[in-house]
Amino acid sequence: MESHELGALMETMGREACAAAALLAHAASEQKNHALAAAAAAVRRERPAILAANARDLQRGSARGLGAARLDRLQLDEARLEAVAAGLEAVRALADPVGRVLASWERPNGLRIERVAVPLGVIGIIYESRPNVTADAGALCLKSGNAVILRGGSDCEHSSRALHACLLQGLAAAELPAACIQLVPTSERAAVGYMLAGMSEYLDVIVPRGGKALVARVQQEARVPVIGHLEGNCHVYVDRDADLRMARTIALNAKMRRTGICGAAETLLVDEACAATHLRPIVQDLLEAGCEVRGDARVQGVDARVLPAHEEDWYTEYLDAVIAARVVADVGAAIAHIARYGSAHTEAIVTENAATAERFLREVDSAIVLHNASTQFADGGEFGMGAEIGISTERFHARGPVGVEQLTSYKYVVRGRGQVRP
Amino acid sequence: MESHELGALMETMGREACAAAALLAHAASEQKNHALAAAAAAVRRERPAILAANARDLQRGSARGLGAARLDRLQLDEARLEAVAAGLEAVRALADPVGRVLASWERPNGLRIERVAVPLGVIGIIYESRPNVTADAGALCLKSGNAVILRGGSDCEHSSRALHACLLQGLAAAELPAACIQLVPTSERAAVGYMLAGMSEYLDVIVPRGGKALVARVQQEARVPVIGHLEGNCHVYVDRDADLRMARTIALNAKMRRTGICGAAETLLVDEACAATHLRPIVQDLLEAGCEVRGDARVQGVDARVLPAHEEDWYTEYLDAVIAARVVADVGAAIAHIARYGSAHTEAIVTENAATAERFLREVDSAIVLHNASTQFADGGEFGMGAEIGISTERFHARGPVGVEQLTSYKYVVRGRGQVRP
Repeated sequence: MESHELGALMETMGREACAAAALLAHAASEQKNHALAAAAAAVRRERPAILAANARDLQRGSARGLGAARLDRLQLDEARLEAVAAGLEAVRALADPVGRVLASWERPNGLRIERVAVPLGVIGIIYESRPNVTADAGALCLKSGNAVILRGGSDCEHSSRALHACLLQGLAAAELPAACIQLVPTSERAAVGYMLAGMSEYLDVIVPRGGKALVARVQQEARVPVIGHLEGNCHVYVDRDADLRMARTIALNAKMRRTGICGAAETLLVDEACAATHLRPIVQDLLEAGCEVRGDARVQGVDARVLPAHEEDWYTEYLDAVIAARVVADVGAAIAHIARYGSAHTEAIVTENAATAERFLREVDSAIVLHNASTQFADGGEFGMGAEIGISTERFHARGPVGVEQLTSYKYVVRGRGQVRP
Repeated sequence: MESHELGALMETMGREACAAAALLAHAASEQKNHALAAAAAAVRRERPAILAANARDLQRGSARGLGAARLDRLQLDEARLEAVAAGLEAVRALADPVGRVLASWERPNGLRIERVAVPLGVIGIIYESRPNVTADAGALCLKSGNAVILRGGSDCEHSSRALHACLLQGLAAAELPAACIQLVPTSERAAVGYMLAGMSEYLDVIVPRGGKALVARVQQEARVPVIGHLEGNCHVYVDRDADLRMARTIALNAKMRRTGICGAAETLLVDEACAATHLRPIVQDLLEAGCEVRGDARVQGVDARVLPAHEEDWYTEYLDAVIAARVVADVGAAIAHIARYGSAHTEAIVTENAATAERFLREVDSAIVLHNASTQFADGGEFGMGAEIGISTERFHARGPVGVEQLTSYKYVVRGRGQVRP
């Protein structure tokens, strides 16, 4: 595609998204829910076509030499497709976030003021290989009354189109315009550039979902607000007053339940005062579960299988069966380590000491801080917030799980009886 | 100053602001309030020095040929200085926004989740000629636990320094680091460039306070999130079911109470169905109060003093005793006019018809929408939110009045009893 053609295409998509957003902002909950139910039905009905499209992506991926992990992320099967359909129905079942009265009060002069949730407008989502993001993100934006422009990775091009076609069937069934959920129809990288810097007139926010390189590019180039999801370099701190059995269970779960999610623990910090009793069993649990442990001298001392940790290990989000581990002087040192090396995502303390726990919860400046619970709870569903578009590590607008409520803004509605300002 | 010197200076300011922010995030309310009370006392004590500094700014302003309006904005006197001191005390009296539990709930597995307000971090504020912004903005950031880097206009350089010195006395009295409130010590324009694009590592958000050119530059160049305050092209719509007396009172107040504030009405829309009865008295009230009226043919027909309105008038924020006026077919046409020409700031409908009012309140996509009340209520104090840093016309993070609560983010605090994720 010529550059001016791509520009004209993106411009048209932006304009149509704005028009759709203006309509969608006032669409009834029933209409949006009808679209989601019909889209779920379409995913089940179109299963053969979607799987055929996915087979083309997998074939091309193999030919391009994609690794097994990436091919697995790309792959759809009957079970995964059913999960996509069920996900659409789960979003349908959420309360409508638009129109919620977030606060209301009356002034001495009789003015009644309400802060009312409204959609953000038009959301751009740039994602990589998981094709299910097409359905999940489309559904979350629709539910929250936002128009969305989706830009999937080239790896999952055919799968994304097939899933997008199901969303369009849902919109059509509910008599909502197709421009509510648009998919950029080209895998040209320049399209991303337009979304980041050339469409600020149309896009109210960009959400990147993907690896570090994508998020870094977005944060570097974006001319519109970004809800970023940086890495989750999550910590578990085992305090001197930790119950050993609880510490073992939480550390093992936080690291090994699933190693590839952003809430997986990447560094274990153990208080020096309990290292003699707590360090060895925790490290050995991890080793026996197949986890590589990279430790400081103290940690290496408890088991010969522990490898040495280097400075860069403290910064690393492994997303794999690897953990860095060190002994720290006390809770203050643990907080300082997290401030220096962490990514402000999710951190847990294990302790029976309430004062120590409260200090950790207060002073650790991360989106999610937990006391006596696994970091793997960092998830919108586990928080009871429903499906989410990711865990924001931004401080601005939305922090932590980004569900339908976080995809809204608000306005002030003021009702008077003729009041003027003195 | 050499460019590398300025860069090093800004870098140091950023680093020190971050360190101060980490401390300030957990400062007790009493400590912050002590600093604000001591700063107010310092403003009263240092009155002669501040007025002398202000005289230097005024002298330089006159020599540079600044207009009367700009010199007036620049000028401090006993009364204005007392208002600055009282403003610091008013911010002191506000509830501490940090640590508020915004929501809390328990999960079926027993996890207790709280969403707790935390500061944003480091705020950059770039402003123009009003020297009182130095005190107001510094106080609001301190109260909300944020470190701030202030960059005032060169017009008010000496006045800003003198007021900043009072804030520093307040910080010292409360044993808070001076880096909590820093003032860029140079009027070089390049300093603004650093704040916008070179300090994203240190600044969490930028707030521009000033004219259109400044806000446009910030939105164009900023590499950090912006809380923007675009113009207030505010509308009053007089509906067919409006009470004439109320419509006259509101239109006159909305335009003429103060013409230079962002909540002042700039366009009057009158429903065709009541134009025969309502248009003339409203227009004549305005004319008699000294307002220039620029109208369409219908409006020109009611009084010979009405000048013709041109297309650009519908877009214009006069901030002066001028109003554009037109007759529209119905409430739908009024909503469409506002969507096309408005700045999404503040709009009012005057009507006795509840259904028409609700449609207007729902469909007009502005930060503030009012029924039967003057647009001049667009003000944090009038909303009961206390002092504010401006009225945000952004959709992201904060919309409408930006007070101390809007200068916070939040984090999730999760308390468990050893739960791990299945």
